[in-house]
Amino acid sequence: MNAAAADGTRGSGTQAPIEYEDASAEVRAVYDDIMATRKSDWVNNYWKVLAHHPPTLRRMWANSKEVMGPGALDPLTKELIYLAVSVTNGCRYCIASHGAAARNKGLTPEQHAELVAIIGLANETNAQAVALNLQIDDKFR
Amino acid sequence: MNAAAADGTRGSGTQAPIEYEDASAEVRAVYDDIMATRKSDWVNNYWKVLAHHPPTLRRMWANSKEVMGPGALDPLTKELIYLAVSVTNGCRYCIASHGAAARNKGLTPEQHAELVAIIGLANETNAQAVALNLQIDDKFR
Amino acid sequence: MNAAAADGTRGSGTQAPIEYEDASAEVRAVYDDIMATRKSDWVNNYWKVLAHHPPTLRRMWANSKEVMGPGALDPLTKELIYLAVSVTNGCRYCIASHGAAARNKGLTPEQHAELVAIIGLANETNAQAVALNLQIDDKFR
Amino acid sequence: MNAAAADGTRGSGTQAPIEYEDASAEVRAVYDDIMATRKSDWVNNYWKVLAHHPPTLRRMWANSKEVMGPGALDPLTKELIYLAVSVTNGCRYCIASHGAAARNKGLTPEQHAELVAIIGLANETNAQAVALNLQIDDKFR
Amino acid sequence: MNAAAADGTRGSGTQAPIEYEDASAEVRAVYDDIMATRKSDWVNNYWKVLAHHPPTLRRMWANSKEVMGPGALDPLTKELIYLAVSVTNGCRYCIASHGAAARNKGLTPEQHAELVAIIGLANETNAQAVALNLQIDDKFR
Amino acid sequence: MNAAAADGTRGSGTQAPIEYEDASAEVRAVYDDIMATRKSDWVNNYWKVLAHHPPTLRRMWANSKEVMGPGALDPLTKELIYLAVSVTNGCRYCIASHGAAARNKGLTPEQHAELVAIIGLANETNAQAVALNLQIDDKFR
Repeated sequence: MNAAAADGTRGSGTQAPIEYEDASAEVRAVYDDIMATRKSDWVNNYWKVLAHHPPTLRRMWANSKEVMGPGALDPLTKELIYLAVSVTNGCRYCIASHGAAARNKGLTPEQHAELVAIIGLANETNAQAVALNLQIDDKFR
Repeated sequence: MNAAAADGTRGSGTQAPIEYEDASAEVRAVYDDIMATRKSDWVNNYWKVLAHHPPTLRRMWANSKEVMGPGALDPLTKELIYLAVSVTNGCRYCIASHGAAARNKGLTPEQHAELVAIIGLANETNAQAVALNLQIDDKFR
Repeated sequence: MNAAAADGTRGSGTQAPIEYEDASAEVRAVYDDIMATRKSDWVNNYWKVLAHHPPTLRRMWANSKEVMGPGALDPLTKELIYLAVSVTNGCRYCIASHGAAARNKGLTPEQHAELVAIIGLANETNAQAVALNLQIDDKFR
Repeated sequence: MNAAAADGTRGSGTQAPIEYEDASAEVRAVYDDIMATRKSDWVNNYWKVLAHHPPTLRRMWANSKEVMGPGALDPLTKELIYLAVSVTNGCRYCIASHGAAARNKGLTPEQHAELVAIIGLANETNAQAVALNLQIDDKFR
Repeated sequence: MNAAAADGTRGSGTQAPIEYEDASAEVRAVYDDIMATRKSDWVNNYWKVLAHHPPTLRRMWANSKEVMGPGALDPLTKELIYLAVSVTNGCRYCIASHGAAARNKGLTPEQHAELVAIIGLANETNAQAVALNLQIDDKFR
Repeated sequence: MNAAAADGTRGSGTQAPIEYEDASAEVRAVYDDIMATRKSDWVNNYWKVLAHHPPTLRRMWANSKEVMGPGALDPLTKELIYLAVSVTNGCRYCIASHGAAARNKGLTPEQHAELVAIIGLANETNAQAVALNLQIDDKFR
């Protein structure tokens, strides 16, 4: 990505996704586990761009599998928490990818409307609480 | 709150909570509805500071009651979404108050640990997705 | 928006705006009030997408009308406050829509340049104050 | 601030404010201009901590004087824009200091309540606009 | 940018970059200094849009030259700090422009991968620290 | 942490740090590795609170060791990147802990002043770039 251009700039920093057929064995092993875990036949761009640095690809997949895998919270709730963070951070890619994941896990349009309403309200009251320098109630300490 | 001080500053902007016994009938009516809705005998500081501007108190309670009330998402899930936003925004008051609400609605320590892990992971991958300028996969469009 | 695709994804989560001619009577009533209040003959996408969930459409319009309507701050100042928040949050839609609203309310290019300068400076000094862990002066408490 | 402690840590990074009587001539010149410009007899902690690095102190005061000085927007409006950013970023010091400045410039409790309401609403609708991936209306382009 | 449209909107607020050949002598002087300082033959859009308000153009270039110029931190490190902030704020323009600057200053793909990993990890642990309401260790005070 | 209180609240959600002497063998093994890796004789609160959920403690330490360990960027630069993110997110704990780490790795007061100046400038120009809806220059694409 870094061939020096004639005018002194060094090209774009945006990296192309690495497709399965172009991937090393090390990277393919992660892709295979992603697809097997998700019972899917493809891998999304997040992983295919991380693949430029295999240690990060491996590390992030291990984290994701552990954190988003089966546990005390159900899979759809986990996606809604993820979406609430992603919206608050304004991450369009993450909203698109985890929105799709949530729909695959059963999110209904009615639930989505409530999710958006809660995210909105929380952002509103967060700002009010900060603006008003609210003291934490003793019962909450 | 705004008496001019001798040195030219005009005092703190932090407003004291308005207690029930000092509240107008209009404000008491909102406090009464908050307590009745929550089956509780007290009101937390957020509402008692908003009470300095009764139209805002009324408006925010109506919003909160509608958005956080019964719907397509269960009450605990709603609180977890709220917490995910509040943590991402760094609102200490909101984390304290909605953390208490979540525990009252049954949040277990194990679920709390998973919540924190997901919020952390989402903030991490959000930043990575932005840093890498990820293009949204066609399947997500 | 949620028909399951053959490959297991469930389509995009992005909802099309609901145009007036396709809207229910309930939704049209809100659109009518928006246009009458704004003395305008059209409604922007924010409302037309919220219209997929009429209770949210109604609620948000009531909030907006109350908060942004006539009060102690003049209409242009209200828009500048809105813009300062929207820029800080990086909301492109909100900057576009409230930028237009501000220009309609008389924002001049000179004022706009000052607005951008203040927003920039505030974001800078906010970061410095946090980095330096500044203690709040007694006179500000 | 950095004397190595016996246990291997190197003390706190928090720097004490530099008072006028302990300041160099270079720093005093800035403090004098701050006080003269503000028609005040004291300087707040932001400047007294920046004073550890005189070039930054000089630079930031020059910026602040230019951006917040007389212009196309009135002084109170400038402070409200500053506050809207500071609340959205959650900067407690900045909210305290610019809240005091706004009150000195005439902010009334009613205006303050409207300011908080607008900041809250903007944070709410920003999040909704992002969550819904709103397309910018042609009229706003 | 503000010609009133027939339908009551007032056009887009987006300003076109001012090219060198269309610039005033005052603006050209800043462009010339930018190019000389950077040993480059062009100026990027940030400066060409700021040029609509020459005092801001001059002020920001003076700031940038002072802060990003030679000092105690090496030039590449300065760009990495800039990038870490820009990613956390989600500023696409800033990531593109300072990413190019970092590559020109020698950033390698391996270093870039580490940068992204650190930014991600920091955003994750920041959120966890806030969620857990961590008390600052005495040794850090 | 969750014993139901008589008044219906369920105590604070803040968890006490788990000290070495109270820790399980599994947790002690992580503490031991933290201290050995850092050549230190103590562990800070972040790890001692994460210890309430040993899988998260193990996972985060493995991540931190990999990301912050030896690599293509020097240890001090890594801490400065971490600090830039932490300041931008307003995480006081993280600023305190990584500020101490940076000082231990040789950060000088002069370098710290430059760090703060760059973080401030980046936050300022990020906001300006967003406010002005800057188009990315072709040379940066």
